[in-house]
Amino acid sequence: MNREKHFRSNPRVAIVGASGAVGGELLRCLERRHFPVGEMQLFASARSAGKTLGFNGSKLVLREVTEASFAGIDLAFFSAGNGISRHFAPLAVAAGAIVIDNSSAFRMEAEVPLVIPEVNVERIGEHRGIIANPNCVAGIVCTALWPIHRRNRIRRLILATYQAASGAGAAAMEELRQSTRAFLDGRPFESRVLRHPYAFNLFSHDTPVDPVTGSNGEETKVMAETRKIFADPELRVLATCIRVPVLRAHAMAISLECERPIAPGEARAMLEDAPGLRVVDDAERNYFPMPKDASAIDDVLVGRIRRDVSDPTGRSIALFIAGDQLLKGAALNAVQIAEHVAF
Amino acid sequence: MNREKHFRSNPRVAIVGASGAVGGELLRCLERRHFPVGEMQLFASARSAGKTLGFNGSKLVLREVTEASFAGIDLAFFSAGNGISRHFAPLAVAAGAIVIDNSSAFRMEAEVPLVIPEVNVERIGEHRGIIANPNCVAGIVCTALWPIHRRNRIRRLILATYQAASGAGAAAMEELRQSTRAFLDGRPFESRVLRHPYAFNLFSHDTPVDPVTGSNGEETKVMAETRKIFADPELRVLATCIRVPVLRAHAMAISLECERPIAPGEARAMLEDAPGLRVVDDAERNYFPMPKDASAIDDVLVGRIRRDVSDPTGRSIALFIAGDQLLKGAALNAVQIAEHVAF
Repeated sequence: MNREKHFRSNPRVAIVGASGAVGGELLRCLERRHFPVGEMQLFASARSAGKTLGFNGSKLVLREVTEASFAGIDLAFFSAGNGISRHFAPLAVAAGAIVIDNSSAFRMEAEVPLVIPEVNVERIGEHRGIIANPNCVAGIVCTALWPIHRRNRIRRLILATYQAASGAGAAAMEELRQSTRAFLDGRPFESRVLRHPYAFNLFSHDTPVDPVTGSNGEETKVMAETRKIFADPELRVLATCIRVPVLRAHAMAISLECERPIAPGEARAMLEDAPGLRVVDDAERNYFPMPKDASAIDDVLVGRIRRDVSDPTGRSIALFIAGDQLLKGAALNAVQIAEHVAF
Repeated sequence: MNREKHFRSNPRVAIVGASGAVGGELLRCLERRHFPVGEMQLFASARSAGKTLGFNGSKLVLREVTEASFAGIDLAFFSAGNGISRHFAPLAVAAGAIVIDNSSAFRMEAEVPLVIPEVNVERIGEHRGIIANPNCVAGIVCTALWPIHRRNRIRRLILATYQAASGAGAAAMEELRQSTRAFLDGRPFESRVLRHPYAFNLFSHDTPVDPVTGSNGEETKVMAETRKIFADPELRVLATCIRVPVLRAHAMAISLECERPIAPGEARAMLEDAPGLRVVDDAERNYFPMPKDASAIDDVLVGRIRRDVSDPTGRSIALFIAGDQLLKGAALNAVQIAEHVAF
């Protein structure tokens, strides 16, 4: 699929949710990757309408999204939550746009491709108007593990996450900053965005817990999306999703079991020449992936590559990874998808 | 074993490392648990000598520990690092004291009991002068898992930790506070205590990494000590130890595989009536163990009790726990040991 098939010229692009943390990163990714935007329209809630954001040297005014917003739009990025995507994405498609949706509204629908370009770029061509961008944890984990999975199938995956405030949006990042300052000053602080105190604290991801499985909403997404992205319904996944007081990069401790034995050196070699990854695994300097280093960069950092000593069969590897929640976990991946739609 | 066998009257107690974070908690635990101290002597490095600390209403002066410090001491708590324990603990024993050692110097020596009273109180009687207090992660994890292990043997344990600053001492707690304030103010900050920037960041535990196994020192301790405390050399453990920007309670995401099938409800029942634990597992309110709630309390909090869905045999359970690193992870457990030595 190439751009000529879709767009008369450089596409007219819309961003729905432009005032959010992901929205801002979408603008910056499109700019720095020189995406050929013919015209840009920014949409937000009524509350943010009237504000301006810079893009490619111009100031653009945010408007409230309405059912008429998508006339003439070729490509629409959605990053304003499930409700907005459910309501407006089908309208955008009906108006002729291709939608790249960062919400979870359509990810598990059979006819919607769920895409990480490094993993399953070939799925993009199957879209019927909507292409789903993965959950931030699933996106980072699948980018990191695909180089192993494609060569020596992962049968079981156990992961514990260390998730940053950005996953709950710009307001949660600000709540982390403000509540931490209040804590240091000995002032009381009442959480408004997140359910639990965040300053020097951590907590189980605050999505609803399924009373049958005991998994929360985030864990359910991570487990299901990983299977869909890897096109491997047999893959067994356990996720424990925890929010930690970090601003914008997620980390994960991982144990994976492959179909056949795998040595740490083999796993490292698979990861070292993979796109979108950087191996940071310096045991001598005790230097491994950290959110500080993973923030504001495109690559997912992978390290602590070692044998999972709890599996005597030699088929299991342990890892620690970190990736920017707003970039590979959201905006960057969405723009990478758009590049494959457009060119 | 009762007190009369050991001590002529209420024991004369020494604390080596009294100025540290654990030392302070030792004093408070002895006070609030009304440990029958006949006389208290506080020792520290030359740097802290001359400072005073309160105990049972008196002000006590810290003195520099020397080879002559232990004359007449019945019971000595050591919490000043491996070097001090290696040098002075044998001298204390030679002078007639029983040593409860919070360092890792003697933990894996065959003739040294490694004790969590809730788990293996019977080992205390086997001591030859030194009783070891476990690593803080091992202490918290073993307290939480013993009620399961003793009924349905745990064969495999995979744990990822979320470790607080207190594990690296009072200076690391202060570095976390100061570096976070500097970050919020946009000021530069140079880490002095820990190897990596700590403000809104996390990192792999900064103990040396074994080039053969790939495990760091903390992980190696956790894995070996868990096997020793459970007296189960066959138990297979993988630990990934991570320092998070939290002040004083550790958390852990755990998957465990038992010998026989185990339902989450069974595991919960085993944990609910166990000493030293509190089940905090309210899915409806999304309320689970958090460092904030685990700080400054004796109980270890256990929750997110659910099936590990990555094991189709029904033998695996997932959990999330939090425990005070300075209390059950250090000072409280040491004082509990002392209570069994003395009475």
